[in-house]
Amino acid sequence: MPQGKVERVPDDGLTTRERRRQPLLAVHTGTGKGKSTAAFGMALRAWNAGWPIVVFQFVKSPKWRVGEETALKALGEHHASTGTGAPVTWHKMGEGWSWLARPGDERDHAAEAAEGWAQVKRDLAEERYRFYVLDEFTYPMKWGWVDVDEVVATLRERPGNQHVLVTGRDAAPALVDAADLVTEMTKVKHPMDAGRKGQQGIEW
Amino acid sequence: MPQGKVERVPDDGLTTRERRRQPLLAVHTGTGKGKSTAAFGMALRAWNAGWPIVVFQFVKSPKWRVGEETALKALGEHHASTGTGAPVTWHKMGEGWSWLARPGDERDHAAEAAEGWAQVKRDLAEERYRFYVLDEFTYPMKWGWVDVDEVVATLRERPGNQHVLVTGRDAAPALVDAADLVTEMTKVKHPMDAGRKGQQGIEW
Repeated sequence: MPQGKVERVPDDGLTTRERRRQPLLAVHTGTGKGKSTAAFGMALRAWNAGWPIVVFQFVKSPKWRVGEETALKALGEHHASTGTGAPVTWHKMGEGWSWLARPGDERDHAAEAAEGWAQVKRDLAEERYRFYVLDEFTYPMKWGWVDVDEVVATLRERPGNQHVLVTGRDAAPALVDAADLVTEMTKVKHPMDAGRKGQQGIEW
Repeated sequence: MPQGKVERVPDDGLTTRERRRQPLLAVHTGTGKGKSTAAFGMALRAWNAGWPIVVFQFVKSPKWRVGEETALKALGEHHASTGTGAPVTWHKMGEGWSWLARPGDERDHAAEAAEGWAQVKRDLAEERYRFYVLDEFTYPMKWGWVDVDEVVATLRERPGNQHVLVTGRDAAPALVDAADLVTEMTKVKHPMDAGRKGQQGIEW
């Protein structure tokens, strides 16, 4: 809503331009579909704005997100060859995080998730990207694999102008409190209710 | 959820494989953000599956969707040069629909929306694409610019294997009834509540 009117002008001493450029912490939660999908849709806008994108995929699945991963990496290649858009980096758990040399199969999920979060922290501290998708990151928080208070404090205190988008069900209340934008996706009707299974191109 | 269990197996005489490949009619509605964004995220999967994509953007705005449009068109170019993915076609109202030679400025919105829908019907009849995004199409339906019953009947009877995704608030009940997948996006918290305006890379 670029032309949108705001409900009130905050008394924060910032100009509209400064306020407009504030880094965003967004959360997509709820039990419906579209949480991650909308995050990757937002990444298209970030790409077009020339913001380096990174995805941390905190799920273990051979199929999920393969369409988004292939397409976003193609956009990264398009950037490399034409200069349009921005670079795209994609890390996923399950196959071992991209920055680790060794495969991750023998290690446990909790340790892997903690390693993923440690890398997010390093990247935020170095201001390495402008747009972060922490996909399904609510689960390691929920399961105690990473410390919610530490996550929230790190995100609140992140330097520079780095946008962070967290997806997943059951977002921690402290994360919701810290977020600027929270959207809940609710299932109204799903084809699995009618006995259909997922299909390529739609579900992955 | 490619590995998902369905709640019941329908008595429709189809194999799982046939049922899996049924064309999908999806609706993203509700007052929250992410309706269109999730639709464009789904388009990434369709692209990766090699399905020709078309977007009909039933909104008049110079900025909205420009990030998604640029990125999806770049994916279409990537397909043209590498063969990966699928072609992408993007039509928008407001600037005059892409297939019309004359500019649309002097005509009224209702006539333009009806022309857009007439083109969708022609494309569906010809099975010209595999993945259709009818962006903000709930509004011309709501405002009576296109006939809801005719839209629903056309979508129900579309030939072949064409997936259609409709976005926008206040989806007509008949459309929701006809849809296989309906997700409602609900706003929990939005930065405009705190007096921020939209910014490039996030909102467009």
